[in-house]
Amino acid sequence: MNEVMEAPRLADTSKFNLSGVFCAVLTPVNADYSPDLSRMVDHCKWLLKSGCDGLGVLGTTGEANSFSVDERIAIMEGLVKAGIPAEKLMPGVGCCAVPDTVVLAKKALELGTKGVLALPPFYYKGVSDEGLCEAFSQVIERVNDPKLHMYFYHFPAMSAQPISHDLIGMLRDRFGDQASGMKDSSGVVENMTGAANKYPGFEVFAGADPALLPLMRDGGAGCITAACNVMPDVLAEIFANRATDAAEKPHQTALAIREIVASLPPVSVLRAIIARHRNDPGWAIPRPPLMPLSEAQKADVYSRLDATGYKLPGL
Amino acid sequence: MNEVMEAPRLADTSKFNLSGVFCAVLTPVNADYSPDLSRMVDHCKWLLKSGCDGLGVLGTTGEANSFSVDERIAIMEGLVKAGIPAEKLMPGVGCCAVPDTVVLAKKALELGTKGVLALPPFYYKGVSDEGLCEAFSQVIERVNDPKLHMYFYHFPAMSAQPISHDLIGMLRDRFGDQASGMKDSSGVVENMTGAANKYPGFEVFAGADPALLPLMRDGGAGCITAACNVMPDVLAEIFANRATDAAEKPHQTALAIREIVASLPPVSVLRAIIARHRNDPGWAIPRPPLMPLSEAQKADVYSRLDATGYKLPGL
Repeated sequence: MNEVMEAPRLADTSKFNLSGVFCAVLTPVNADYSPDLSRMVDHCKWLLKSGCDGLGVLGTTGEANSFSVDERIAIMEGLVKAGIPAEKLMPGVGCCAVPDTVVLAKKALELGTKGVLALPPFYYKGVSDEGLCEAFSQVIERVNDPKLHMYFYHFPAMSAQPISHDLIGMLRDRFGDQASGMKDSSGVVENMTGAANKYPGFEVFAGADPALLPLMRDGGAGCITAACNVMPDVLAEIFANRATDAAEKPHQTALAIREIVASLPPVSVLRAIIARHRNDPGWAIPRPPLMPLSEAQKADVYSRLDATGYKLPGL
Repeated sequence: MNEVMEAPRLADTSKFNLSGVFCAVLTPVNADYSPDLSRMVDHCKWLLKSGCDGLGVLGTTGEANSFSVDERIAIMEGLVKAGIPAEKLMPGVGCCAVPDTVVLAKKALELGTKGVLALPPFYYKGVSDEGLCEAFSQVIERVNDPKLHMYFYHFPAMSAQPISHDLIGMLRDRFGDQASGMKDSSGVVENMTGAANKYPGFEVFAGADPALLPLMRDGGAGCITAACNVMPDVLAEIFANRATDAAEKPHQTALAIREIVASLPPVSVLRAIIARHRNDPGWAIPRPPLMPLSEAQKADVYSRLDATGYKLPGL
C-alpha cells in the first residue's frame, strides 16, 4: 500500500448535493456552426451509460462563451426535453455580465438542475476578491432562490481570475451552502484539498484528470473534466475504487490519455476522437475562434491513442 | 526642433473614414447598477463640446462586457435618440460569441455609425490567427453590409488575444477597407506605426495617451483613450498641433494626468474625477466586478490631480 493509501480521508459524498464523475461535455455544431442538439443528446446519453454521474455542459470544453445566451438556453432546454435528466446536469452559467449569468442560472433552476457552474466575470484582470464577491452576490441575490447551488469555477489559466480561498470564505459567510463548491482547473491538488478541508461541506471537483484520485483521497467530491468525453469508463472506475489500490490501474490509463488530449488544443483533440469513434467527421469541427485539428494532427492523435491500448466504450 | 519633428509623416486624415480624438466613454450606472442613460448623454455632450471628434462608447473603459447585449443595444439607441450624432460614435461590439457581435454590429450600422470597435473573442487563450480571422470573418459575412467598417481592438494585456500584423493582413486581403483600422492599447508605439505604414489606409488609433503624438507623426489616425474622459481638451490640442512644437506642452500635461489615472484601477479613478467635477457622487460607482475607489484613494487622486494645475473644461 502506498503512502497516500495509509490514511485516505474520504468525504462522505452521500451528504453532498453533487458528487462523482462529471463530463465537461463538448458542444457539437452543424456546418453553419449552430449547435447540433441531436448529436449532443446522443453524446450525453452515451456518457451517462458509460459511467458518468453527471454532465457539466456549457463549460470551457463546451465552448459556452462562444455561444449566445439564447443559444445556451436552447441547449439546456433541448437536452432536458430530449430526456437527459435535469438533475444530472451542472450547466455553466458564468458570463462577464451579471444579467446574463442571472438569466442562465434562473433557466437552469427552472429546468430542475441541482447546481450551476459559475466562471467569474473574466474580461477584467486583477479584479479584487471584493469585486468578484460583489459580482457573485449580485447573481445569487437576483436569482433569489434557495434552491440555487453555485459551484465556482477556478481556472486562472483561462479566466485569469482566481477563486481564492479567501473569496470562498466570503461567499460561504454570506450565502452558506448556496456557495456549494468549486471546479478547480488549476491543476494544483493542494489548492483543491485545501479548500475541501478548510470549508467542511464545500464540494470540490477536480478540473483535470490527474487530480481526481488524490483529491478523492483527501476530501474531494469528484471531477468535471474534458478528457472524460473520451474515457468516461476510466474515470468512473477510478471513482468507484477510490478507497483501494484498484484505482491505480485506471489512474495510469487516465494519465496516458490525458497527456494525448493536452498535447494539442484539447477541445479539438476530443472532437477528433469522437468524430472517429462515431464515424462522423462533422464532430471534429468547433465554433470559431477554435479551429479543427489538421488531418496530420488527427492521424497523430489516433495513432498515439491506439498505442495506449484503450478503446472507448461502445456506442 | 526635436528629432521626431525633423520629418513628421502625417497621414492625410481627410481621406480616412474616422480620425481624431475619440473618448473611450465611461458608462454611468444607477444605484441598482443599471445603465444611467441620462448621465451618459450629459457626459457625451460635454466631451463633444470640449474637443472630442468622436466617442468610443462601450469599450473596456465603458465596461461593455459587464453589460448584456440588450443593455448595450439600449445604450446605443438611447444616445442617438437623445441627440448624440450617430456618426460620432464608434461603439464596441466585440463579444466572445460571434452571434452577439453580429447583433451589436448590425444595430450600430442601423443607427448610422461609421465604424465599430471589435475585440477578438477573448475567453480562449493562445488561439491561432487563423481562428481569430475565421471568427471576425463570420461576423463580417453575417452582417453582410459594405457599410460595415471594423476597427480591431488590440489589447493583449486585457483580452490576451493580440491582433497581429499578420492577422491584419489576412483580414485586409479578405475584406479590403472593411477591415478599416485598429485601436492599439498595447502601449507599443512601434506596433502602431508599423501597422499604419505596412497597410496604407489602415486607420490606427492609439489606445493610450502617451502614444497619440508619436503615432500621429508617423501615419496614425488618432486616439481612443480612457483618460480622455477627464482631459478631452488636452488631447484635442495635441491633435490640432500634431505638426508643430505647440503639441509638446499639452503632451506633457497628458502624460502627467495619464500617470494619475493609471496609478489605481483606471475606470474607478476616472469615475471619481467626474463625480467630483459634476458634484455627483453616484458617478463614482462602477458595475461589479469593478469597485469604486475608497474615500482615501479618492482624496489622494484629487490632490495629485490638483497639483498638476490642470482644470477640466466647464460643464
